Amino acid sequence: MSISVAVSGASGYAGGEVLRLLGNHPGVTIGAITAHSSAGSRLGEVQPHLHSLSDHILEETSAENLAGHDVVFLALPHGASADIAAQLPEKTLVIDAGADHRLEDPAAWERFYGPGHAGTWPYGLPELPGRREALRGARRVAVPGCYPTSALLALTPGFTAGLLEPHDVVIVSASGASGAGKSLKPHLLGSEMIGGMSPYGVGGGHRHTPEIEQGLGWAAGNPVTVSFTPTLAPMSRGILTTATARAVPGTSASQLREAWEHAYDDEPFVTLLPEGQWPATKSVVGSNMVLLQLAFDEHAGRVIVSCAIDNLTKGTAGGAVQSMNIALGLDETAGLTGAGVAP
Amino acid sequence: MSISVAVSGASGYAGGEVLRLLGNHPGVTIGAITAHSSAGSRLGEVQPHLHSLSDHILEETSAENLAGHDVVFLALPHGASADIAAQLPEKTLVIDAGADHRLEDPAAWERFYGPGHAGTWPYGLPELPGRREALRGARRVAVPGCYPTSALLALTPGFTAGLLEPHDVVIVSASGASGAGKSLKPHLLGSEMIGGMSPYGVGGGHRHTPEIEQGLGWAAGNPVTVSFTPTLAPMSRGILTTATARAVPGTSASQLREAWEHAYDDEPFVTLLPEGQWPATKSVVGSNMVLLQLAFDEHAGRVIVSCAIDNLTKGTAGGAVQSMNIALGLDETAGLTGAGVAP
Amino acid sequence: MSISVAVSGASGYAGGEVLRLLGNHPGVTIGAITAHSSAGSRLGEVQPHLHSLSDHILEETSAENLAGHDVVFLALPHGASADIAAQLPEKTLVIDAGADHRLEDPAAWERFYGPGHAGTWPYGLPELPGRREALRGARRVAVPGCYPTSALLALTPGFTAGLLEPHDVVIVSASGASGAGKSLKPHLLGSEMIGGMSPYGVGGGHRHTPEIEQGLGWAAGNPVTVSFTPTLAPMSRGILTTATARAVPGTSASQLREAWEHAYDDEPFVTLLPEGQWPATKSVVGSNMVLLQLAFDEHAGRVIVSCAIDNLTKGTAGGAVQSMNIALGLDETAGLTGAGVAP
Amino acid sequence: MSISVAVSGASGYAGGEVLRLLGNHPGVTIGAITAHSSAGSRLGEVQPHLHSLSDHILEETSAENLAGHDVVFLALPHGASADIAAQLPEKTLVIDAGADHRLEDPAAWERFYGPGHAGTWPYGLPELPGRREALRGARRVAVPGCYPTSALLALTPGFTAGLLEPHDVVIVSASGASGAGKSLKPHLLGSEMIGGMSPYGVGGGHRHTPEIEQGLGWAAGNPVTVSFTPTLAPMSRGILTTATARAVPGTSASQLREAWEHAYDDEPFVTLLPEGQWPATKSVVGSNMVLLQLAFDEHAGRVIVSCAIDNLTKGTAGGAVQSMNIALGLDETAGLTGAGVAP
Repeated sequence: MSISVAVSGASGYAGGEVLRLLGNHPGVTIGAITAHSSAGSRLGEVQPHLHSLSDHILEETSAENLAGHDVVFLALPHGASADIAAQLPEKTLVIDAGADHRLEDPAAWERFYGPGHAGTWPYGLPELPGRREALRGARRVAVPGCYPTSALLALTPGFTAGLLEPHDVVIVSASGASGAGKSLKPHLLGSEMIGGMSPYGVGGGHRHTPEIEQGLGWAAGNPVTVSFTPTLAPMSRGILTTATARAVPGTSASQLREAWEHAYDDEPFVTLLPEGQWPATKSVVGSNMVLLQLAFDEHAGRVIVSCAIDNLTKGTAGGAVQSMNIALGLDETAGLTGAGVAP
Repeated sequence: MSISVAVSGASGYAGGEVLRLLGNHPGVTIGAITAHSSAGSRLGEVQPHLHSLSDHILEETSAENLAGHDVVFLALPHGASADIAAQLPEKTLVIDAGADHRLEDPAAWERFYGPGHAGTWPYGLPELPGRREALRGARRVAVPGCYPTSALLALTPGFTAGLLEPHDVVIVSASGASGAGKSLKPHLLGSEMIGGMSPYGVGGGHRHTPEIEQGLGWAAGNPVTVSFTPTLAPMSRGILTTATARAVPGTSASQLREAWEHAYDDEPFVTLLPEGQWPATKSVVGSNMVLLQLAFDEHAGRVIVSCAIDNLTKGTAGGAVQSMNIALGLDETAGLTGAGVAP
Repeated sequence: MSISVAVSGASGYAGGEVLRLLGNHPGVTIGAITAHSSAGSRLGEVQPHLHSLSDHILEETSAENLAGHDVVFLALPHGASADIAAQLPEKTLVIDAGADHRLEDPAAWERFYGPGHAGTWPYGLPELPGRREALRGARRVAVPGCYPTSALLALTPGFTAGLLEPHDVVIVSASGASGAGKSLKPHLLGSEMIGGMSPYGVGGGHRHTPEIEQGLGWAAGNPVTVSFTPTLAPMSRGILTTATARAVPGTSASQLREAWEHAYDDEPFVTLLPEGQWPATKSVVGSNMVLLQLAFDEHAGRVIVSCAIDNLTKGTAGGAVQSMNIALGLDETAGLTGAGVAP
Repeated sequence: MSISVAVSGASGYAGGEVLRLLGNHPGVTIGAITAHSSAGSRLGEVQPHLHSLSDHILEETSAENLAGHDVVFLALPHGASADIAAQLPEKTLVIDAGADHRLEDPAAWERFYGPGHAGTWPYGLPELPGRREALRGARRVAVPGCYPTSALLALTPGFTAGLLEPHDVVIVSASGASGAGKSLKPHLLGSEMIGGMSPYGVGGGHRHTPEIEQGLGWAAGNPVTVSFTPTLAPMSRGILTTATARAVPGTSASQLREAWEHAYDDEPFVTLLPEGQWPATKSVVGSNMVLLQLAFDEHAGRVIVSCAIDNLTKGTAGGAVQSMNIALGLDETAGLTGAGVAP
């Protein structure tokens, strides 16, 4: 018996990636595909890479059109999910790729997104301690942001093991252009992006900071303070995160390696590379893999973890599909691959 | 019962792509993985994107190591396949991604590759008239070159329909860097390639010209003359071919569209886009799709066909896997996808 | 005594490049800098690379603001130049980087741009026979399009020498993203462009075709028919043109080489590379150089010329400044460089 | 009277950039151009972008060939400069773009480069307090590394003003491929680099760390501890550095801004952008500019400074030419431009 799935926001990059992955999923049937300004178009016009779905007609995004499916993926602008979700039956599995239901602290949400925190849903990053269990049987899931996915998987083992200082985490991430979405802004033009890098949203102002602090706080058991700087790199997909934290005094390099080495032993999609090999974003393009490497800069007293993911796959749509699989009791890896499209 | 498969040349781009696709193939078991200078290494060192195979140890490429499998993929330098193939049992399906067995005319082969034409094997481009039949049950297959794959699929419908003049075909292709392989040459460095284009092997000297002429000659029923210019584009994967031929006098635009419109009706991996939509290489990255569009420049009397493929997938490894599927009577699309990894 | 110059369209890529070059020009003083929707902004906000001019305030583009300078550069949308030019004094040197005054044949203009051909001005490609003389002392100059610049310089020597057939010229060009301007269109986003190629405006429909045919006709002394296909490459700047024409029967390779070898002997900005070396667009980035290479495909009977230029420099703003220099009797190379910014 | 200049290492990226800049310098005459494995070649074969110098023949790099010029630029592998320099007359201005003479502490040098510290020369970063004076009349100059150039200019104002804590500086830089030189390594191939990012030399092991700590120590008047992580970005040129340090308790955002605002008031090549505008590497391509922006993340207690330079220009060859100008008493900006080649 196939599971029926509806996908909203299908003209954007996140929605397109959800559809690409579902197209390879053995257990689902794609039903309604919805969009806003592109409603009425053939999907092939806006997502020409999704060949087998190209003749689907995009419907208007509405609770009415999305209802009647076993699963609904919401890939909508921040703030737009809560209304729709409220109109969908409780038994429907609703997976929100937006920010609306990620944060536990209403004040943190409101600082970056304005009034009206919509509540908190189980967090779709099953590799964090305790999170997989919360997803089993869930009917509402908040998919983590792409930057937090990379940052949390990079540093959680060290905090869980009590080897990292909770204050003064410093994270610098480079993201591909698709992380900024399909919005028509001058600095996102190919002419501007090809061959150059630039920072943006610097100085604590990035709205992903509270989500990173929340997740690291879960691992540390205490509040964690993060300085986070995102940069924009001339690539379509991929995030390379450099996450550093001070080691607790007296920590040795081997203690640190050990903490990371076994943290993800049973995880199908997270791996610590052999020593000396560093993660490149190209290794994970189109895949759900998370590649990590670790170094202890004893001179500076800092642990440096590099983490590569595909922002659209593990960072968004892959994490969403993985969460669906867990929530419904399917094989967690269905529709997902660990092999990147490289070079 | 799973089919056992060996892959040689596994440290290169073509071999890596064969492995990536086989990893998604439901009916095969990967056995020996061989290489030359990297023999003895973990596959993960040279192909870090192939996560599930990363602990395989590369064996030396030899007939001995490749024997004992149902299928052997050869992704070797031109000229190296014939020797190995001769030592493999006749019942083994040998699929050669190199040039050794593509050309029917020994003189054409020797002009570009030197003495010692190794013979001609069934041609692994099933979308050409009559070729799929020849692949059924075959135990030796020559995978077409990546440029010829795009050029032949672009122009064959017009020649089959008798609407194109056989002399004076002009083809200009842009290929991504992986088409030049992993060889360490200065002009292939990232510093040199990023942000620029250059031609190479211009002036009839390109060794893919006879293969294009051979394949178009099959469709035309007569010798076809081609001027072919390849260029190198700042992308990792993809070929965009612009193929033009003079229309037979009196041909109308609608006759031309009709010829292409139905030529690939039953093909899972070739599609003529709706009028007005042009093929972008990004739509086919990692997929086995071939996207075509057609225009009739009545002013110049030329038909212009644009064709986008992924040079490593449909242009090499995907064509190889598709041929394997046909030769063994499996589902032709097993292990392959029509959905590109975009953006 | 310094020459005063005004630049319109200064928020766009062409206007920005004119300003960059004028900033290195020893004999000019930059006066009014005008734009349309950005009027009132600091130049530094829209052109952050023009450091020394960053505090200039953009004025509204109007004849009033542009008047009172010795030279006015128009880098405006097609169709917008004629009105402004008509309001500027006859003694003012007006250099139009748009299409309005390039074509001699009103019918050709109207086919692509609509009614109201504005007349023909001296053509700012001094390397074509007879064109430099027409520029001396001129007070109105039409700067050629970027594609025509590359195509005309590629093939003119062969037509001048009577070695090429005038019918059935086939040209395929790859252009960087800046050739499409700063307009906010989805297919020009970095996410879409990085790592891929696509054709556009295929099938004789490209508005640069009549300009190429006009210029080649001057050299051939007869009408020339061209099939022209532009493609979009993942680079910010640069055009690589592959231009092919049938050689007149009996033509030898050495005759052809000779025709090109001396055609540009006295030209500071055009060079035929030594045999075996092919032009890469990166060699000319930011420079006014035109690099050519030539091959005779005797098998196909076609001459193939590769030509690399920077679309914004020699293809637009460099050609404009070079024309200004000639018109005013300055050193033709002032403000221009032959050295590309590579790698 | 023109100054005669010799350039060694002319087949590499640093040497090529020195030649490009000298070609635009009004006061110098280029004499010997030397290389090692390319000796005997035309410069045009290895540096096709340097049009006006293309017929120069590369001589073997030797003290003999370099002697007899007023200025000698050394762009040699690390460790090769000292020998050559010792053989050049004391009155010759020798400018070393390599690492041999940058570090004051022999132990720091030997930790990364092996035994045999060659001594310390005046440091060619005139924008640091007191350094310009030391360059005036100097006959030996050590050009800073590209990463240290960006890091030191980013953080020095804060240390000079006493507003930053000297321990626990964290710096993450993204560099273009040319920073890794022209060496033929697999991970530098276009196929591998285009469309992806990767870290390298992580964990305190990067040999530029002591140079950064040395320079920040000058400003702080105390030892400074730095955690430095370089990453490789898919661009040919450019460094984007994200440099962060803890603010001294009680420091206000306005104090910080003030410290940076006036630090570079008289500098022709360093500028703090207006608030809200962030530095993009494309704005400085081919130019000697350094663009800075600053944010105070009060929540995390860290100052974050973004700095964009062209690694080959200000980061190497531009810094070298600027130092030459100062040492010889020429206009400091001769041969250099503040305008980047964008887009």
